[in-house]
Amino acid sequence: MMKLLNKPVSSMGEFTLIDRIKKILPEVDSPEILLGMGDDCAVIRLDDNRAMLLTCDIQMENRHFRRQFITFYQLGHRAVAVNLSDIASMGGRPTYALVSLGLPQDMTVKEYDMLFQGMRDELETYHTIIVGGNLAQSENGLIIDITLLGEVRVSQYVTRSGARPGDKIYITGQTGASGAGLIILQRYGKNYPVKYKDLVAAHLNPRPRVEIGQVIARLGLASAMIDVSDGIAGDLHHICSMSRTGADIYQEKLPFADILNEVAGETGHSVLDMVLHSGEDYELLFTANPDQSDKIQNHICKPFSIPVTEIGQILPADNGYCIVTPDNQRHDLEARGWDHFKANQG
Amino acid sequence: MMKLLNKPVSSMGEFTLIDRIKKILPEVDSPEILLGMGDDCAVIRLDDNRAMLLTCDIQMENRHFRRQFITFYQLGHRAVAVNLSDIASMGGRPTYALVSLGLPQDMTVKEYDMLFQGMRDELETYHTIIVGGNLAQSENGLIIDITLLGEVRVSQYVTRSGARPGDKIYITGQTGASGAGLIILQRYGKNYPVKYKDLVAAHLNPRPRVEIGQVIARLGLASAMIDVSDGIAGDLHHICSMSRTGADIYQEKLPFADILNEVAGETGHSVLDMVLHSGEDYELLFTANPDQSDKIQNHICKPFSIPVTEIGQILPADNGYCIVTPDNQRHDLEARGWDHFKANQG
Repeated sequence: MMKLLNKPVSSMGEFTLIDRIKKILPEVDSPEILLGMGDDCAVIRLDDNRAMLLTCDIQMENRHFRRQFITFYQLGHRAVAVNLSDIASMGGRPTYALVSLGLPQDMTVKEYDMLFQGMRDELETYHTIIVGGNLAQSENGLIIDITLLGEVRVSQYVTRSGARPGDKIYITGQTGASGAGLIILQRYGKNYPVKYKDLVAAHLNPRPRVEIGQVIARLGLASAMIDVSDGIAGDLHHICSMSRTGADIYQEKLPFADILNEVAGETGHSVLDMVLHSGEDYELLFTANPDQSDKIQNHICKPFSIPVTEIGQILPADNGYCIVTPDNQRHDLEARGWDHFKANQG
Repeated sequence: MMKLLNKPVSSMGEFTLIDRIKKILPEVDSPEILLGMGDDCAVIRLDDNRAMLLTCDIQMENRHFRRQFITFYQLGHRAVAVNLSDIASMGGRPTYALVSLGLPQDMTVKEYDMLFQGMRDELETYHTIIVGGNLAQSENGLIIDITLLGEVRVSQYVTRSGARPGDKIYITGQTGASGAGLIILQRYGKNYPVKYKDLVAAHLNPRPRVEIGQVIARLGLASAMIDVSDGIAGDLHHICSMSRTGADIYQEKLPFADILNEVAGETGHSVLDMVLHSGEDYELLFTANPDQSDKIQNHICKPFSIPVTEIGQILPADNGYCIVTPDNQRHDLEARGWDHFKANQG
């Protein structure tokens, strides 16, 4: 026991640390708290019909971003987008934001303005308002911590824990693009080949699926949902462990842009690794009963002009967590994701 | 103009920077937002009677605290107390917290546990629950950013902007103790003379005036209120500038512990400087119509066994912002506070 207590927290995974918090904190016994720690947002009942969503995300220089790759405007946009995506994954409508900043000594007023302009433009899309925050000076790089509130109907919010064996697994858009964009930035810096500009844009300017999340919730299409921040393998595993299920992912069905093959060729990274284990695509990964497939087509793919791909199915827990390769072999799928706690992505 | 834009943000005060944000962000035109940026909390209408309070505060190692002076348990307690005090100053009841942490590599599991135990014990006093948060690894010291929510009746919350000429200025408890405690820690380290233990405790274990704030709001005693985080001189100036008034503070009436004279003698700091310009006492500073003085006595001083001292009066703006010395001279009072943005307190 002493041994564990003397270990550095940096040697432990995020979920182990969250479990420790749960053991330390008193058990929650409040009818107002519909959902506490462990999902994309906390859900607090406001009245009979309405619930509030709460999420926050801290982004630190040289861990989550590097100034040589991203502008302050993009950084403001991105810090907000990451939080909007958490609201999206519960099916909510974002409402209010609080912004806490640790400002480095050398940051200029112009850079400060650009940061807020980036936040403003991204938040305005969703009629979301910055109502408060906190400024402090940082000795060590820029720190951006945004708390975002949202609203959702009590009967409609979607969690990570509702997947059932037999459900299909879907993902919006394509995956691996943001991770590939980061690889390109790390390889070439800002003067990357122009053919990779969409990948770099996917990394620097992620587009959270806020409206789609709301449609999924309103129509009750999904049994469970999460946004892809840590990579499909890690994030689907969150759904499976909270729903107490297993799953098969079909390798051949994973949707990604052809150009990832070029990235793989040039950099030595495997395409499958980018698609399964790189994160920050901020697509929605959800599970749904098979009888919802027409509605998904008609209410998401067509109106939003976006692919929604069936990439696997939920199975009983004893089937395990697997990937099915093109030769029809089932292999254990490593839940390893883009662990923001353990990995330094910068 | 170029010149200003190229200046470092570190050369500018917190309020100048907040004003820039207000210019960048769109004007808020929402009946739900009862109060936006610029007070201790944002106030959002929940329904006809209830409003939600929102505040956040970021604490960074070597800027807001130093590990050699404070335990992790105290740090957890303190990070929460600072936010509770903001809810107190609006007259609200704290409800839910989100905790964002940047964890340094060398922090042990035991230290992590102690941090949460400190938060838990302080929050439990007020039946306040941690419902979510975010963990990331920090390259540069511990970062604690807490967002705290509260609730208050729409008709009862107290702002910084309601002071009127003729109002008396009151403060709970005593001031300068936390600042003196910090001076003692900086001078002696942990082996400070035992006679200073109450001062050091005032600095390390501040007690926010949550229940008193609620009584003040419920009985409508105050026209304006703020918690003393930056020092009386700076914080009362916030009330005056937001209420568009002036004020006189009577030097002789400022309440402080006798032992501050010893600190002054030993360290060369002036008592008046500690009392007016040192911060983090987390007492409540409020203004009230003179006809409330009996109620203040009967509903605060007696039941809470705490002094509430009348230290001055609100005057029209053209009277200026002054301190009245014992020889009855009026001097301009410098609004300089314990500016968390510009000063490094560690």
